[in-house]
Amino acid sequence: GNFPTDLYMAEGLIATLGRGHQLRLVAPEEIEAALSEEVAVLYVTEVDYRTGRRHDMTKLTAKAHALGIVTVWDLAHSAGALPVDLAGCGADFAAGCTYKYLNGGPGAPAFLYVAPRHADDARAALSGWMGHAKPFAFELGYAAAGGVERMRVGTPPVLAMAALEASLDIWDRVDMAEVRARSLALGDLLIAEVERRCPSLRLVTPRAHDQRGSQVSFAFDGGYAAMQALIARGLIGDFRAPDIMRFGITPLYIGESDIVRAAEIIEEVIIGEVWRQPEYQVVNAVT
Amino acid sequence: GNFPTDLYMAEGLIATLGRGHQLRLVAPEEIEAALSEEVAVLYVTEVDYRTGRRHDMTKLTAKAHALGIVTVWDLAHSAGALPVDLAGCGADFAAGCTYKYLNGGPGAPAFLYVAPRHADDARAALSGWMGHAKPFAFELGYAAAGGVERMRVGTPPVLAMAALEASLDIWDRVDMAEVRARSLALGDLLIAEVERRCPSLRLVTPRAHDQRGSQVSFAFDGGYAAMQALIARGLIGDFRAPDIMRFGITPLYIGESDIVRAAEIIEEVIIGEVWRQPEYQVVNAVT
Repeated sequence: GNFPTDLYMAEGLIATLGRGHQLRLVAPEEIEAALSEEVAVLYVTEVDYRTGRRHDMTKLTAKAHALGIVTVWDLAHSAGALPVDLAGCGADFAAGCTYKYLNGGPGAPAFLYVAPRHADDARAALSGWMGHAKPFAFELGYAAAGGVERMRVGTPPVLAMAALEASLDIWDRVDMAEVRARSLALGDLLIAEVERRCPSLRLVTPRAHDQRGSQVSFAFDGGYAAMQALIARGLIGDFRAPDIMRFGITPLYIGESDIVRAAEIIEEVIIGEVWRQPEYQVVNAVT
Repeated sequence: GNFPTDLYMAEGLIATLGRGHQLRLVAPEEIEAALSEEVAVLYVTEVDYRTGRRHDMTKLTAKAHALGIVTVWDLAHSAGALPVDLAGCGADFAAGCTYKYLNGGPGAPAFLYVAPRHADDARAALSGWMGHAKPFAFELGYAAAGGVERMRVGTPPVLAMAALEASLDIWDRVDMAEVRARSLALGDLLIAEVERRCPSLRLVTPRAHDQRGSQVSFAFDGGYAAMQALIARGLIGDFRAPDIMRFGITPLYIGESDIVRAAEIIEEVIIGEVWRQPEYQVVNAVT
């Protein structure tokens, strides 16, 4: 249930620490059973980047804590897509990006969460000046700032922060419960429209509302080429190996007519076998 | 001879490694004598952020290598300010910023250099997807890309990269030897003008051309307040504790008339004792 690059970061940290920690991968449905007292950290992506399947953060965090396990949640496909209550479920740490559902733009700043009970003890693996207690005193020794401020490291990318701030101004006026209700309704509509028009596409996103994020994904053998053909027609989803076509639902600016039009374009590409055209078979560097 | 926040990063890495490494600080003029076979890494800022004093990179690197020491250079005040020949002096690693002399904008991307002889062995302390051999294959295991590409970690901040690219387009058309000659001439002019007008300001930048970067700094007890008064008059330098007023020389867009005008403003503030006015005594968060 992890985004692969989260695992790369864990691998790098384990190698740097050099103390024999192990990275254990388990299937999403086996996470709960795999928790035991010999596990140090539970590191999970709440919403799976391929299928859109959502983990039960409250339940997993409670079980982890009963076993003395620290929890780290990746919220890349959660923040801005559905209500997230880190304090309510007692999560220890979380991180995420702002370039997906929070509309911070390409390569937008990341964010992290440290539970207040850890904020004066936790330290970043590396330490930099913006996390110093007095960043502009230019003292020779490092002294961590109090609270979560210590987790800042380098100079913030001001242009990217400015773009993100403009987006967050909008989010300040949004009720996440309304966004969530609308997202699920639009997702249901997309599922119904695509299943009716294109039976060769296999839904891999859970139908149950409490088990999904704000995306709808279908498995299709010609998925890569099909997505290229969709993008050429203005329907921009993406492809994730080996065969996943995914579509993000963003209710702030997508409505029912957009969903129906998307299903029409998908039908044109799949039923019309447009995806078989040679120009859509060429694999690009960025998928 | 280090920018303090470089030391914070080293402290953080040492704590994360937990293997008893020591961080030894020595005065700039004692670096060469302090090198010995028990030193693992020489980590120096080529041009001092306060005084503008420049280290002899070629000489220090040669001595370090003779003792089996790896060299890491901070080029924050070098890149775009003077010619830097990392390959020529055999440096192992270097890092720097693009928001000073390279005009990348506030919080612009950093850069790093890895000598080609290390590029297939070195690894980042953490590892992320942009340094993976196949970033978009989303494999579960990390496999470092060949060469320096492996040192990339996260998604690049695209807005910041776009701004930097526009700046680097200009730098592509610039002869660094010409920039350097002009920088030194303008620096000499600023020193002469300020020393003639304001004898209470004490030059802390070396006069010798081969020992300085592209800034001129003066020590002055009322330096913080004086800099606030200068900024209010459109002369934007900055203050570095405890008493340094520094002025960057950027020949791409500053000429002799700007230098003379700067000296006039400094004279007005210092000789006219404008800096004693209460509004310039208030210390801001960012200095």
